Amino acid sequence: MTHGVLLPIGGAEDKTAKRVVLSRFVALCGGTEARIAVIAAASAVPEESGKRYVDVFSTLGAAQVSVIPIASRYDADSESALAQLRAATGIFFTGGDQLKLVGLIGGTRLHAALRERHAAGMTVAGTSAGASALSQHMIAFGKSGSTPQQRMVQLTAGLGLCAPLIIDQHFRQRDRIGRLLTAVALSPQLIGVGIDEDTALLITADGKAEVVGSGSVTIVDGGALSYTDAHAVKGYSVIALHSVRLHVLTSGHIYDLNTRLPIAP
Amino acid sequence: MTHGVLLPIGGAEDKTAKRVVLSRFVALCGGTEARIAVIAAASAVPEESGKRYVDVFSTLGAAQVSVIPIASRYDADSESALAQLRAATGIFFTGGDQLKLVGLIGGTRLHAALRERHAAGMTVAGTSAGASALSQHMIAFGKSGSTPQQRMVQLTAGLGLCAPLIIDQHFRQRDRIGRLLTAVALSPQLIGVGIDEDTALLITADGKAEVVGSGSVTIVDGGALSYTDAHAVKGYSVIALHSVRLHVLTSGHIYDLNTRLPIAP
Repeated sequence: MTHGVLLPIGGAEDKTAKRVVLSRFVALCGGTEARIAVIAAASAVPEESGKRYVDVFSTLGAAQVSVIPIASRYDADSESALAQLRAATGIFFTGGDQLKLVGLIGGTRLHAALRERHAAGMTVAGTSAGASALSQHMIAFGKSGSTPQQRMVQLTAGLGLCAPLIIDQHFRQRDRIGRLLTAVALSPQLIGVGIDEDTALLITADGKAEVVGSGSVTIVDGGALSYTDAHAVKGYSVIALHSVRLHVLTSGHIYDLNTRLPIAP
Repeated sequence: MTHGVLLPIGGAEDKTAKRVVLSRFVALCGGTEARIAVIAAASAVPEESGKRYVDVFSTLGAAQVSVIPIASRYDADSESALAQLRAATGIFFTGGDQLKLVGLIGGTRLHAALRERHAAGMTVAGTSAGASALSQHMIAFGKSGSTPQQRMVQLTAGLGLCAPLIIDQHFRQRDRIGRLLTAVALSPQLIGVGIDEDTALLITADGKAEVVGSGSVTIVDGGALSYTDAHAVKGYSVIALHSVRLHVLTSGHIYDLNTRLPIAP
């Protein structure tokens, strides 16, 4: 594989102090040569969200930072949006609502160009809703809680940049392990990735994923699942699961997507 | 592409009279040379369901018909199940519950071997729950009705044999267009396919999909979607959609997945 780095971020990343996660993103995009395009379409206040990241990335030394304005699906099919994306060395998706983001760009020319450029090596990051949206099978919304229940998570199609991963965010802060376990119980071929705030998973083309930032990343792997009654329980009854493999990884730990095993620093 | 034919069936197909859909399946598997393996893991009464199809396919002249017994995920990792699958020219998934089927085989060695053999040319059919499960983004369950509402459909990961299609079944009989519209509103990069009872969509490697049987196939294409508020409405409020492309196709009509346009017979 030759595709670019993928950097899902768990939301609420430090923007004013050490900025470990965002600095790493700028470095991945080329540092002082970086040309970053911000997509704030997930946000309820896209101008404000976009500007905030333009300021941070500029302060961190990127050569060029701009916002691709997308208020409609027409915008996401426009030549100007495509030109902005194609000129970038890195794309950054802000937080907000992942359904709003996918509703505006899913299946458009911008979506196709994003996949094409990422496959050719461009770095792509997203925070909060922007992280969830990177998944093929995306958590659209759900309920908090630590116990898996059949109806606590709703999946839709995401942008499809990391096919076997279901990415969840604000993970520890919003008590989301129940819904990630539910997602994997219902779809055991997928790997659940729960990312805490101010934390990211840096996924390279060789399938190595490194934890960056102050929190942890929880991995829920259904590959060894020997039993679940997820199909049989109804509504908000609790789902039984046998042999889920769970990892909690902190800064510097690596999760190998090929072997599905973690590597300590 | 060189992969085998895919034949999702809308359920309740004729098993005693002309058997148009099931005869076509046997012919696709090699007719009198056909070696068919039935997977009845979706069914609540798998022995009964399996035997029923063994009898029908034998009557229709297949050379060999057997059931791959899968009562647990261990069975789906077993050498005997893999050997049965690899010896087959065609696989048939019965109806039942698609979550039960995916819970038992999703991510197992049988799932991997199924994808590999289908990619190499093996025919794969599924009826009712077995049709839904062929999707990448699978309708797990949902509500009936003709109006799209945000929470009326639940998606999980399916077997992934027809990536851009969301397949629904018993379509007209159970009034399911609302949930298919909802699925496409939430994931506009996908194509919704609603298949009536005693009807199938015969999808070939060149992307041509032909309607077979006594009912119709409804196509809901979000590719030209210009607006939706699917992210903003909550619960069971109705979703707005602009410019969904809809086709209702009967026997002999072809839907071209490359151009996304239908061709009359």
